[in-house]
Amino acid sequence: MIKAAVLGYGTVGSGVVEVIQENNRLIADRLGCPIEVKYVLDLREFPGDKNEKLIVHDVQVIMDDPEISVVCETMGGSGAAYEFTKAALSKGKSVCTSNKELVEKYGPELLKLARENNCNYLFEASVGGGIPIIRPMNTSFAPEQIQSIKGILNGTTNYILTAMAGEGADYAGTLKKAQELGYAERNPEADVEGHDAGRKIAILASLMTGKTVRYEDIYIEGITALEAVDFAFADKLGRTVKLIAEAENNDGDISAIVSPRLLENDHPLAGVNGVFNAVFVTGNMVGDVMFYGKGAGKLATASAVVSDVIEAARATLDKTALPCVWSEEKVSLVAHDEKKERFFARVRDMYADKFSGKLSGAEDMGSIDGWHGYVTKSMSEKEFMDVLKTSGVDARYIRLD
Amino acid sequence: MIKAAVLGYGTVGSGVVEVIQENNRLIADRLGCPIEVKYVLDLREFPGDKNEKLIVHDVQVIMDDPEISVVCETMGGSGAAYEFTKAALSKGKSVCTSNKELVEKYGPELLKLARENNCNYLFEASVGGGIPIIRPMNTSFAPEQIQSIKGILNGTTNYILTAMAGEGADYAGTLKKAQELGYAERNPEADVEGHDAGRKIAILASLMTGKTVRYEDIYIEGITALEAVDFAFADKLGRTVKLIAEAENNDGDISAIVSPRLLENDHPLAGVNGVFNAVFVTGNMVGDVMFYGKGAGKLATASAVVSDVIEAARATLDKTALPCVWSEEKVSLVAHDEKKERFFARVRDMYADKFSGKLSGAEDMGSIDGWHGYVTKSMSEKEFMDVLKTSGVDARYIRLD
Repeated sequence: MIKAAVLGYGTVGSGVVEVIQENNRLIADRLGCPIEVKYVLDLREFPGDKNEKLIVHDVQVIMDDPEISVVCETMGGSGAAYEFTKAALSKGKSVCTSNKELVEKYGPELLKLARENNCNYLFEASVGGGIPIIRPMNTSFAPEQIQSIKGILNGTTNYILTAMAGEGADYAGTLKKAQELGYAERNPEADVEGHDAGRKIAILASLMTGKTVRYEDIYIEGITALEAVDFAFADKLGRTVKLIAEAENNDGDISAIVSPRLLENDHPLAGVNGVFNAVFVTGNMVGDVMFYGKGAGKLATASAVVSDVIEAARATLDKTALPCVWSEEKVSLVAHDEKKERFFARVRDMYADKFSGKLSGAEDMGSIDGWHGYVTKSMSEKEFMDVLKTSGVDARYIRLD
Repeated sequence: MIKAAVLGYGTVGSGVVEVIQENNRLIADRLGCPIEVKYVLDLREFPGDKNEKLIVHDVQVIMDDPEISVVCETMGGSGAAYEFTKAALSKGKSVCTSNKELVEKYGPELLKLARENNCNYLFEASVGGGIPIIRPMNTSFAPEQIQSIKGILNGTTNYILTAMAGEGADYAGTLKKAQELGYAERNPEADVEGHDAGRKIAILASLMTGKTVRYEDIYIEGITALEAVDFAFADKLGRTVKLIAEAENNDGDISAIVSPRLLENDHPLAGVNGVFNAVFVTGNMVGDVMFYGKGAGKLATASAVVSDVIEAARATLDKTALPCVWSEEKVSLVAHDEKKERFFARVRDMYADKFSGKLSGAEDMGSIDGWHGYVTKSMSEKEFMDVLKTSGVDARYIRLD
């Protein structure tokens, strides 16, 4: 019997308890022994809840109980969650988490602490919710030099972009509708400004390199500046607007950017719609592989946490360390504005001649709703900004894939 | 240092050696120690090949060498491959294979033999080539009651169906072109009749149930009867024709069928084109998850074998058994013609009235090229056959998804 504790009885935490209890018999069959949730830590009481009697308010009860070998950290944040994770690992209790902020900030430190205490720190649920991606990165792609990772890693923004593309609607109205439907938070900043996707690609980029790619170093652009006319031009280009979080290894030059991109309609990521997420990985041997699924949601995310609990439990029984190469050594990223890209740019019709005169080699996309569109040749954003400056024209632009 | 042997220096076997040699340093970084291919077993000589000196003709050299802890079986077939696999496992050498036929026929026996000898039998490459699916089934989905698995598991047929859909071409001409391009074998039967996909879904269905679903028990229908007019009707229905290998667990009733199906165009599998494969898994907690990638090809398949080699090597160092629940207990499948489905059916225009008079509740799809199309309500194939019989009309039909 493996006994586990869950820290935080919120959406994901209560989902973890539900998955373990609901699928208990088949989990026991597969693991070879049952898993029981012995404690749930929460400041609140849950009168009438079927797990009411599992609630404890003092984390020390969990830390001091030698029966607890696995702890699920589903609190979020990097304050108490950080302290509790360190305390658990120091006591040789494996920790499984859905907390991307904590993983991004302290991943290598916590992995090291786990190894020193013969236990494991696992974080499948921190990226892509129910999509298996962390474990494949650590195992399936172990023979691969990963060349690029491109992800649709945020369901809120993908829901908004899908709606804008389908309905020709504007950003503000679509966001409002998403909020009403519960697909966007009342304060949507972390999602729509790309920060959430940024933390997730920082984790994936770190696993890609085996070193640390810091979230703070990643250039991040959200979706708030996109307008209906961008989608009209995308359509004309045979492309789709997606918020892409990407990390590339170009012969050792590592880059990481989160920004809207125009993907060709037949790219597998272009068909990922609504709240679904996907991660598109390219390795030097395996080629292109894509993982698709629910990037968020109570039970999908909880399922990923529980898959880690089962692995942690097995590793506890076997006394083994699960594979994860992620050192504290920091990766220097290529400056985002020095990477060669192609850009879609639009300027007001009246400035079209002035602008195109300075933009050699660009493809003319014609005019829509008072805007004239262009697709540039491959150039750095810095070079593109120089064109803007010398032309004296204000342009809106989006990266191509 | 982990020393490995490769059985068979054909396409996949030579790919395995290439992946291990080419990405040797990063594999060593991730595993914590290097992997060296010490022997390659083949009846042929390879004069001038860079690995010429690794070639041995006598399998006993490999079996008797205590330094060899991992054996890659990339020979195919179930004769010598079966004997050599048993010999290696009996000596405590883990075996990693791409051989779906062997895995399907002897999986549980070989897994048991591996456990008895403290080693592992791994077969990530046996289904979906470079797509990680076996390991996710054993680990990521360990908390899941898997409700269904739907796969595009054969690249040859998917290439042909994609071409027929895109070009309105007929089957025979498209097959011929695929053969010229090397996407179909000279004797394409195993692919186009669905047998290859059948073996693969037998393996996935076995992992879904933890018991044995036999290939022989699966109803299998290939793509050879499809005609251009079927694609025209599909188009009219907003659907796409794909060869789907599926396994379902409907409250304990297990079914497994390989057949052409009409998928709605916005189904994630509908966008999987050309030689790409994909597996769409639905769990009771995680919901829908899809895995996409190259289902065949030298380096993609070899990468999957090598990911197993790395896991086997780690397990050898740690002396652990990797998770895989697959017992010899046989699963009784629901008869394929008793499962409720919807069918697209077409009859010659002149028989339309006679046919539709017997087919209550069907949707009339109108006429194309002398054929009249219908979509039936949900019914078993047996019930549908009764309609055909009483109407006295010959109809062609395809299952809907």
